[in-house]
Amino acid sequence: MAVLKVHGSVISTASQRVFATLNEKGLDFELVLVNLRVGEHKKEHFLSLNPFGQVPAFEDGDLKLFESRAITKYIAHEYASCGTQLIYADGKKMAGMSVWMEVEAHHFEPASSALAWELVFKPLFGMVTDGAAVEENEAKLAQVLDVYEKRLGQSKYLGGDEFTLADLHHLPNLQCLMGTDIKKLFDCRPRVSAWSQDIMSRPSWVKVMELQKNH
Amino acid sequence: MAVLKVHGSVISTASQRVFATLNEKGLDFELVLVNLRVGEHKKEHFLSLNPFGQVPAFEDGDLKLFESRAITKYIAHEYASCGTQLIYADGKKMAGMSVWMEVEAHHFEPASSALAWELVFKPLFGMVTDGAAVEENEAKLAQVLDVYEKRLGQSKYLGGDEFTLADLHHLPNLQCLMGTDIKKLFDCRPRVSAWSQDIMSRPSWVKVMELQKNH
Repeated sequence: MAVLKVHGSVISTASQRVFATLNEKGLDFELVLVNLRVGEHKKEHFLSLNPFGQVPAFEDGDLKLFESRAITKYIAHEYASCGTQLIYADGKKMAGMSVWMEVEAHHFEPASSALAWELVFKPLFGMVTDGAAVEENEAKLAQVLDVYEKRLGQSKYLGGDEFTLADLHHLPNLQCLMGTDIKKLFDCRPRVSAWSQDIMSRPSWVKVMELQKNH
Repeated sequence: MAVLKVHGSVISTASQRVFATLNEKGLDFELVLVNLRVGEHKKEHFLSLNPFGQVPAFEDGDLKLFESRAITKYIAHEYASCGTQLIYADGKKMAGMSVWMEVEAHHFEPASSALAWELVFKPLFGMVTDGAAVEENEAKLAQVLDVYEKRLGQSKYLGGDEFTLADLHHLPNLQCLMGTDIKKLFDCRPRVSAWSQDIMSRPSWVKVMELQKNH
């Protein structure tokens, strides 16, 4: 097997999505650190891996991929026999799971990443938080979590009764928001709260947090 | 085979994505019109099909799905033997195609749907276009199309040498923008221009436009 390479950053939520997937699969990988502070992701070498200049990029032998959710799906399919099954083999179950992967991408991600930007990254970079943007996205996230609260009464996880990519894709933004006032939106919804505690305590995710601490 | 049902609207770009996929597959379907003007998509019956209250929703026998891109993927996999092959059987080719599906979802869609909202739907509803939002999203779309222009020099279509879902998912927003000043962004990039003309002239898409005209 070729060495799997992730070109990324330990603070990038999209990179963390890929790290968590590799950990669930028990796959070793080489982390090629991309220095975002000096704009290495906008330089020629990195742009040859991802023309949009965003981490992560991924290599498995000759195959080069970018876009974190395309990478996690590839790993889940290609290494189906390793570690945790993160997808379903059954077509109809997979379709149901796919709905919730799209929900994460088109509903959870826009609101949660806007909140992470305003409440975590802007203060980190000495920028001023935009109160109106926080309010708007907090309302949007609350609506998404209302749907999740109901959904988690029908199945243990979002994509079905097993932990899958549909849950895993939430982890980086979820973790980000746990250190902010937005945590209350999760805490006040019993099933959402239990689900988020459950998935954040998975060894694969604890390992991602340790990787972040050690760099 | 159970009757395939699409609960949608002929003017909804997300519904059009599903119609085009069914047409490519040569599959008959029942169109259950959801009256957006009277807010039927926010009423209990429709919310039981999609808790986010957005068209389309889809039924194939007992299976109920929402989120247009989850529906198109299900159709492409489940009805792989019908009509146009819209996905790859090979894992590595599929992974490459998957990258460009994510690019559509996370780069093309946000900019193009914001422009369609400002330049097509707002005037339709008698609302005032926000010039700053147009400028911002025009710049974003131009950057995306620069990447596409390069990509289309490497393969005939975005996801590889065959027309796939990675191209098809672009059709509704692409068509919307062709009637606006934004068309110039496509026209001035030769490969992007040829690609958009090519995919918009597919019989599957012409049929979607006829469906729109006849309702």
